[in-house]
Amino acid sequence: MQQFEAFIARHKPVAPSFHPHYEDALSIMLEAGGKRFRPALLFAVVSAYNELLIDGAYHAAYAIELLHTYSLIHDDLPAMDDADLRRGHETLHKRYDEVTAVLVGDALNTYAFEVLANAPFSDATRIKLIRSLASNGGSGGMVLGQAIDCHFENQPLTLEQIKTLHINKTGKLIAAALEMGAIIAGRNELEKEIYDFGIKVGLLFQIQDDILDVTQSDEEAGKTTNNDEAKNSFVTLLGLEKAMDEANVLASEIQEQLLSFDESLQGTLSPILKSYLHRHRQQ
Amino acid sequence: MQQFEAFIARHKPVAPSFHPHYEDALSIMLEAGGKRFRPALLFAVVSAYNELLIDGAYHAAYAIELLHTYSLIHDDLPAMDDADLRRGHETLHKRYDEVTAVLVGDALNTYAFEVLANAPFSDATRIKLIRSLASNGGSGGMVLGQAIDCHFENQPLTLEQIKTLHINKTGKLIAAALEMGAIIAGRNELEKEIYDFGIKVGLLFQIQDDILDVTQSDEEAGKTTNNDEAKNSFVTLLGLEKAMDEANVLASEIQEQLLSFDESLQGTLSPILKSYLHRHRQQ
Repeated sequence: MQQFEAFIARHKPVAPSFHPHYEDALSIMLEAGGKRFRPALLFAVVSAYNELLIDGAYHAAYAIELLHTYSLIHDDLPAMDDADLRRGHETLHKRYDEVTAVLVGDALNTYAFEVLANAPFSDATRIKLIRSLASNGGSGGMVLGQAIDCHFENQPLTLEQIKTLHINKTGKLIAAALEMGAIIAGRNELEKEIYDFGIKVGLLFQIQDDILDVTQSDEEAGKTTNNDEAKNSFVTLLGLEKAMDEANVLASEIQEQLLSFDESLQGTLSPILKSYLHRHRQQ
Repeated sequence: MQQFEAFIARHKPVAPSFHPHYEDALSIMLEAGGKRFRPALLFAVVSAYNELLIDGAYHAAYAIELLHTYSLIHDDLPAMDDADLRRGHETLHKRYDEVTAVLVGDALNTYAFEVLANAPFSDATRIKLIRSLASNGGSGGMVLGQAIDCHFENQPLTLEQIKTLHINKTGKLIAAALEMGAIIAGRNELEKEIYDFGIKVGLLFQIQDDILDVTQSDEEAGKTTNNDEAKNSFVTLLGLEKAMDEANVLASEIQEQLLSFDESLQGTLSPILKSYLHRHRQQ
């Protein structure tokens, strides 16, 4: 992961001009860290099958982080979550202004596809990766989830609707990270299965994030947490205890599906899931 | 062009959900028309060399229109131009809300790359098209131009700086449209030359837009025009008459370079340039 952070620093978007802060603003949130959960999943799949492809995998993982990071920058805007803190830093619209936050988000969204178009793979693999990222991160995926989340902020949703919300907002990009790992590893037969697995992992990750939102302070989380009742989350709908039950059921399903994978894949995925998911469950 | 409008209607982004207006909002600005200048340029290059490739060219032209349209939606936001009218319609943040305008813009940005990844070309051609669109429409192109435009709204720029602004904000996407035409037509040797030509065409297009901004009403333009002195434009820096002189000098340079192209390309580009550029100059 340290090597991946160094990769990000070496590949940040470059845009020299007489603008006083635009270029800095482009990379500040990328370099501020974050959990790097999606990259870790992608690396786990690739390294299960071919360690030699890890350098190339950095490009794909970076593209996912670019898309994820732009979405956080836009989610934090005054018109949406109006957050002051992200990844332990002031949000871009607080540090600079709203214009900068909107435009940097736009630039990172587009840059994700530039990175994939230049990644060290065959053109056929590049196109498959671009399709996966675009179809899961765009209008019928992550953005749809965010649109539902914002629009229904003050109207309670059903459990089924909250699942739709989070499958789109969180699940699909996590599923894409796993699918992109399978694409890079050349495991066509694994793509669908690991994608479906990723949807469940994403849902669990989101339930646990909702649990954290009500049990952690802003400082612990490194971001503005949303303790308000208006937000549609598993916790506001089910209550803390039942949300934790739901998380445990999902965790069992994930564990079961994990056992159906190749042993090498179980070996690389297990520690990632444990370190990212257990940590939250113990809160 | 009627066929291209029908193509857009057939390929609008689909995202069925229980959200009451998200899916409609995704296509309203795409279908509202606009000048379609960039598509017209791309079609001119492709049809100069191979009429049979025009159907494929629709996909590439659509991707450019998606990027251009998302940029208009975000430019119109309250934090930027705060415009009420675009393409003769209420802007998205006026019709719905700011959240919808931000998210629809994000979705169209990503969708542009999905369209290119599925366009009916070889993977190698798709990748070249994606590179061209991403590098010109993103952090070091259109978005940089918009960042400069917004940041220096109340600080006068030099002529050189205004050119940098508009080469990025307007020129590069227009240049990309011509370059993508050459890529589709398989004319590698033409790519650089027609790209440079496009930068000049874009600059002229922008000067004429600046002239229109002070000579046309909102109703005539179908959008909120910016008559305020705070905006950095060729007209505010040079005055109306000298801006028109600058436009005429550029028009002569463009005409001269046009004569260096293949006759078939001159034949298809000339009428497009005349109809899009003369119309404005006579204002």
